[in-house]
Amino acid sequence: MSTAGELGERRIIELLIDRFRRTPKMAVPFGDDVAAITLNKGLLAVLKTDVLVGKTDIPPSMTLRQAARKAVVMNVSDFASKGVKPLALLVSLTLPREYSREAIEEIGEGLNEGAEEYDTYIIGGDTGEGVDLTICCMVFGVSKKGDLTLRRGAKVGDVLAVTGLFGKTSAGLKILVEGRDSPQSLREKLVASVKMPTARLREGLALARTKAVTASIDSSDGLAICLHELKKNSGVGLEVTKLPMAPEAMKFAEMQGLNPEELALYGGEEYELVLTVMPEGWRRAEKAVAETGGRLIPIGRVIEEREVTLRKGDIVEKIQLRGWEHFRK
Amino acid sequence: MSTAGELGERRIIELLIDRFRRTPKMAVPFGDDVAAITLNKGLLAVLKTDVLVGKTDIPPSMTLRQAARKAVVMNVSDFASKGVKPLALLVSLTLPREYSREAIEEIGEGLNEGAEEYDTYIIGGDTGEGVDLTICCMVFGVSKKGDLTLRRGAKVGDVLAVTGLFGKTSAGLKILVEGRDSPQSLREKLVASVKMPTARLREGLALARTKAVTASIDSSDGLAICLHELKKNSGVGLEVTKLPMAPEAMKFAEMQGLNPEELALYGGEEYELVLTVMPEGWRRAEKAVAETGGRLIPIGRVIEEREVTLRKGDIVEKIQLRGWEHFRK
Repeated sequence: MSTAGELGERRIIELLIDRFRRTPKMAVPFGDDVAAITLNKGLLAVLKTDVLVGKTDIPPSMTLRQAARKAVVMNVSDFASKGVKPLALLVSLTLPREYSREAIEEIGEGLNEGAEEYDTYIIGGDTGEGVDLTICCMVFGVSKKGDLTLRRGAKVGDVLAVTGLFGKTSAGLKILVEGRDSPQSLREKLVASVKMPTARLREGLALARTKAVTASIDSSDGLAICLHELKKNSGVGLEVTKLPMAPEAMKFAEMQGLNPEELALYGGEEYELVLTVMPEGWRRAEKAVAETGGRLIPIGRVIEEREVTLRKGDIVEKIQLRGWEHFRK
Repeated sequence: MSTAGELGERRIIELLIDRFRRTPKMAVPFGDDVAAITLNKGLLAVLKTDVLVGKTDIPPSMTLRQAARKAVVMNVSDFASKGVKPLALLVSLTLPREYSREAIEEIGEGLNEGAEEYDTYIIGGDTGEGVDLTICCMVFGVSKKGDLTLRRGAKVGDVLAVTGLFGKTSAGLKILVEGRDSPQSLREKLVASVKMPTARLREGLALARTKAVTASIDSSDGLAICLHELKKNSGVGLEVTKLPMAPEAMKFAEMQGLNPEELALYGGEEYELVLTVMPEGWRRAEKAVAETGGRLIPIGRVIEEREVTLRKGDIVEKIQLRGWEHFRK
């Protein structure tokens, strides 16, 4: 008999979904970044929930305020990847009974900080006593059918792009969790990427308006897993020709004798968007993101052969399907 | 410095809400059974989240399937009290890593069982590793502004009513948690009320259509707390003239030397609706509930004096503000 720890998050979710009957109004398949149902005349109610667990999701020295803010960012990031504005948030908390009043206030402030940053509001929730802290957020928004960017939709020839560079959070976690060392100024940047992540909501909303994006996912599980998810859902292949490595991560890797590609591909919690753009819409998409103050970085293209590869000149390596997964650390 | 255990659930929620900025689109005040925001033309998005915690909310011998089903019932019951149909459910789970595959499947089956019973669907969710099981459900529905029955709205002279009898769950918990004894057939009924509770969704939807209900709440926190909540939110008083005691609870109380009124008033998790009905709409409301196979039981009336009382002939006793509260057991 397998245990949750042996099964891993993905298999657990499959086991659960197998038991759920399907509504005919379901507008987004299970396993995409958000869920949605059709209300009427093509109007969709878009919903998302993501849970942050004290024991496994809060690294040493991260404050409760930061953790609560991050619980909001995690959820907003999924909406960003679909191009949907979060209209309201609900939060269910479980709190250990020994938590101080100050700790509870910090959690409240962090939740509100996250909500304010993305111009949304907490409108309800629940609290209960728990053995550990859990912060379960739920986001609600609306979208028109066809406006919502799914994980499926990438076409051969599309440009593969990201909204930022990868590897800093992996490096930051190695500092916080494994106790690896780094010069002060580098350390601050890497650790900040873990403690104060940013969701690419402005970018995601601007991209959705261009109608140039064919598929999109948020990179919370790591770049490699995202690429494999886009591949699986769209039924295409992806070739990365320029790995979007953060210079800080490269520097850290060099100093620590680590592989920088490993940090960029197989980490997680970057909350960047990974997307495919139709070639004729590339300029439009690039401009739209630039106008939000962000950056759309081309990293490769959609190919026919159903593989996820990294091309270095004439050498083509396979990108493995691994990264962040709950139960599997 | 106070701890969560000393503050109690209600105070914790106040501390959190104090830190949240308010949206102008908020259609239901904080602290009602559901949250809602205005979408357009008087259409409301209605949302609710409620979390079930393994350690505190699952009594001995309750199966995981029953617990998962109950997590759905808890949330549906809040929708029932507002007269809103649940259109979709999301579920976030935290699972201990030693949970077996069978346990996970049981949870999936219980969640689906609850959803099917109330003609709704699970459309998404999240899972993570946790120290304890937590099942965090979120429900979504839509309503027209003005159709949603709040906790405020009770008027002096309205009939106070409930959809069922009280006390069985308190008795059932005394059997399961305190190990109290009871003859087999009685025991089965009392324990079933804890393990397989029912949300009064059909009744709540039928009542909403009558437009005769002025205020409504679900009784998950116990009858006494519900009455005090209706009083506080509506700015009126409530006089109970006939306490709706379940005969099974009365029998159990007698055999165990307990006060049956105590079981009926200060328990919780009955998931009945407690509501006020305008006198001219009483027949209509009674008939609507009867047509669903349920029963609308008058138990008193709305009075001017802002107190919650129990009248026994010429004697009037105050009903205390106490019952089920997380952190306070």
